Amino acid sequence: MKSLKGRDLVCTQEWSREELLATLELAEEMQAKRYDPKFTGVLANRTFFMFFYNPSVRTRQSFECAATELGGHAQFLEPKSMRLKTAKTAGETVEDAAKVMARYACGLGIRILEDKIGAYGEGDALIREYARWSEIPVVSMAHDKFHPCQGLADVMGLRRHLGANLKGKKLLQVWGHGALARSWCSVQESILICSRLGMDVTLAHPEGYDLDPAVLDQVKKNCAEHKARFEITHDPREGYEGADVVYSRNWMTPHAYDSGEFDKAGEIEKALALTEWICDAAKMKRTNDALFTHPMPIDRGHEVTDEVASGPRSIIYDVAENRLHVQKAIMALTMA
Amino acid sequence: MKSLKGRDLVCTQEWSREELLATLELAEEMQAKRYDPKFTGVLANRTFFMFFYNPSVRTRQSFECAATELGGHAQFLEPKSMRLKTAKTAGETVEDAAKVMARYACGLGIRILEDKIGAYGEGDALIREYARWSEIPVVSMAHDKFHPCQGLADVMGLRRHLGANLKGKKLLQVWGHGALARSWCSVQESILICSRLGMDVTLAHPEGYDLDPAVLDQVKKNCAEHKARFEITHDPREGYEGADVVYSRNWMTPHAYDSGEFDKAGEIEKALALTEWICDAAKMKRTNDALFTHPMPIDRGHEVTDEVASGPRSIIYDVAENRLHVQKAIMALTMA
Amino acid sequence: MKSLKGRDLVCTQEWSREELLATLELAEEMQAKRYDPKFTGVLANRTFFMFFYNPSVRTRQSFECAATELGGHAQFLEPKSMRLKTAKTAGETVEDAAKVMARYACGLGIRILEDKIGAYGEGDALIREYARWSEIPVVSMAHDKFHPCQGLADVMGLRRHLGANLKGKKLLQVWGHGALARSWCSVQESILICSRLGMDVTLAHPEGYDLDPAVLDQVKKNCAEHKARFEITHDPREGYEGADVVYSRNWMTPHAYDSGEFDKAGEIEKALALTEWICDAAKMKRTNDALFTHPMPIDRGHEVTDEVASGPRSIIYDVAENRLHVQKAIMALTMA
Repeated sequence: MKSLKGRDLVCTQEWSREELLATLELAEEMQAKRYDPKFTGVLANRTFFMFFYNPSVRTRQSFECAATELGGHAQFLEPKSMRLKTAKTAGETVEDAAKVMARYACGLGIRILEDKIGAYGEGDALIREYARWSEIPVVSMAHDKFHPCQGLADVMGLRRHLGANLKGKKLLQVWGHGALARSWCSVQESILICSRLGMDVTLAHPEGYDLDPAVLDQVKKNCAEHKARFEITHDPREGYEGADVVYSRNWMTPHAYDSGEFDKAGEIEKALALTEWICDAAKMKRTNDALFTHPMPIDRGHEVTDEVASGPRSIIYDVAENRLHVQKAIMALTMA
Repeated sequence: MKSLKGRDLVCTQEWSREELLATLELAEEMQAKRYDPKFTGVLANRTFFMFFYNPSVRTRQSFECAATELGGHAQFLEPKSMRLKTAKTAGETVEDAAKVMARYACGLGIRILEDKIGAYGEGDALIREYARWSEIPVVSMAHDKFHPCQGLADVMGLRRHLGANLKGKKLLQVWGHGALARSWCSVQESILICSRLGMDVTLAHPEGYDLDPAVLDQVKKNCAEHKARFEITHDPREGYEGADVVYSRNWMTPHAYDSGEFDKAGEIEKALALTEWICDAAKMKRTNDALFTHPMPIDRGHEVTDEVASGPRSIIYDVAENRLHVQKAIMALTMA
Repeated sequence: MKSLKGRDLVCTQEWSREELLATLELAEEMQAKRYDPKFTGVLANRTFFMFFYNPSVRTRQSFECAATELGGHAQFLEPKSMRLKTAKTAGETVEDAAKVMARYACGLGIRILEDKIGAYGEGDALIREYARWSEIPVVSMAHDKFHPCQGLADVMGLRRHLGANLKGKKLLQVWGHGALARSWCSVQESILICSRLGMDVTLAHPEGYDLDPAVLDQVKKNCAEHKARFEITHDPREGYEGADVVYSRNWMTPHAYDSGEFDKAGEIEKALALTEWICDAAKMKRTNDALFTHPMPIDRGHEVTDEVASGPRSIIYDVAENRLHVQKAIMALTMA
């Protein structure tokens, strides 16, 4: 395998299976030897910029911890304090910002979600614009299209509880009811990476909640390549049959941007009506004693019941912890 | 003494005298050997989360320095950027937030004061809720009821200037005039810890400025146990007689929350009228050449005159510095 | 040369030429040996406070990186979260704030610009007030009058591309058109430090854009002492003749505060009309194949064309990078 040094990570699909597995194995080793001197100096005296167009809980905490555990420092930056050029205001171009940041730091993480953009895909384009001009690796810390660190953390959790070979295991990726209008990023990343690892993927969501067609096409290709099954259902129950993993998560409709900006209130109103789409113990009984996972924060009582989220098959805290380990591995491989 | 590893610190009253004295002794050693290799790696590569519901000067500065001096890193987090569940909005439960933070960090500090709560005691309850779910130590960085780090810093200052045995020394804890409506936390912590160390405590405040009755009961018990005197006066001068330490500080009335939220403006109006309650040189002449202390920031010209605050018996900067040392000691003992 | 330990840096004019050259030489060595163990422990376990009255891009990034690369930690503090005393509100005095900060940290950086003050000079006065009370070095991170770190970074760039001896080289310091109302600080610092290093200085700006007369007097004195020429022109082209360095930058008029607060909108309106004052290839042809520099962020298309800013003689990214190296050198010399 070629070194990953200098590589960007915008979506796991853009890394080879071999590269992803190497990253997961390093993350697993880093978990087992969390403060081993082998790792604690990897980014010594180095700076990682975290660039939050959107605030975050887990992502800020886990990336900043990751840099600290590798001996470096993650700077928390918010674009409100950067005078970037926009259509309406004078300011700095992405080219200039990126080229200077590359002089200071060993890597750059960017988070940009729905409410900071005017149409699906603009966040992805902005990250790629930074990556274009920056000589240091750019890592998505979640954007409108993808969330590669979450995808790797999910899979690391599955590997721990189901074994390293996930081939033939069935993932139910299921829409969750609630007072939310969440991004497609975690869900799209999940079905992309799981299908590449040979898992059978069932995507279950109400009518009108289709994901990005280009992503679905890619998932189909991944499944074909790895001899896995892919199906979509609009029934809130049937996808649970025989599932080994249930991953519940609310997401928005493709119409969220129809007005030219993110219509959060409208999306929440639609989502609140679909009360059947809660993951509960009755539905979980149809599964093959499935693990329950979710990228957190969970909207308990809407997306999933407390009984399931806090039950013995829930791996939510392990997956959240894995964010730390996979991000350390990514940073070590691309930035050290 | 049992190890303090893993212990929460919400109020000094919940730690034994032996544990408090061990903490003070370690803080004193850490002051004497500030950058000694014995201490500079204690939290190497570890993260301490600072969770500020309320902003702060000293607390942010001193906790973040403390982590740095122990080789670790303190992350500055503000709940406005955390989507926590409230009565009105979807979000994460304290249980989920705390359990994940425990996977990332070695400790969690929380600051929550008057204007972020609807009734006295809610801040204390929230900190205990975090402590309940978190496997890592939770430390109060000041809340509506208590301020254990300030209490320890105060006592460390008194020990330096009066000797390690404070038994029989008289503390005047006196209300201060001003355009302020301050928390009870520092004052309540002071009379709790000082009474446990055997100091005679005189609490002086205008009528209507009573503190928490449960705290006063505990102070009385502490005094009884340690054969110390406790008295309350509503005269702005007489408490100064024979005092060894004068600790001036504005605080709010018990009616601050009567409207269901913190009535800062109303409290300031009441406090501004009580101009006699300034600590000045004339009043200090009645004392036993008392030390002057205050947890800062000081409202000079209201709570205390410049002559006293900047005078030769003022220990305000030493006490402020002590915040660093006691917090380092607490972190080393509970989180290393 | 006497040690710089403990010295403040408010303007390069207040340091001797010998001290500035020693700082530049150390910065150059630090660039050549960026992560050499000789430097990576210089501020080990030490805290540098960054006190941002105004937000910033480069300054935050470069100072925080600088502390990290020296083994220390830069704390990002914003005065909105410090309850400082003002004419209208109770709060802490600068004396108290500074004296306590000196107990925690090894140095203090302050940034305060136009929109946070009511008249030119108030920012400079505030920094000097902090320096008066603080026992630790205070460094300007840009204020209304001066920007010493930018001045040193500029000169470090010139030394790299023109050689260490800048004597007799011609600097054109030229006003830039645009939708901006920028501070005088970088420009004033540039002509002060360049004149002290023996460069001929031509200051070119539209009528009505005079800088601080006291600074201009000092530049004249510097030129006299070092046998260099100083001239002012109000023609947008003629200053380019024979220039070795062209430094373009928008700045405000001396009338920006006439209303008692910073009139940004009014300044922008004036500046937008002066379209001739763009630095472009045609003007650059008049020079002695001059380097182009700018302190960034650049308002491309207004202050300067893309062709020049991204051209082969542009040293903007090098100068931006130099901020890191000179700040590391300043911190090492004054705070270690």
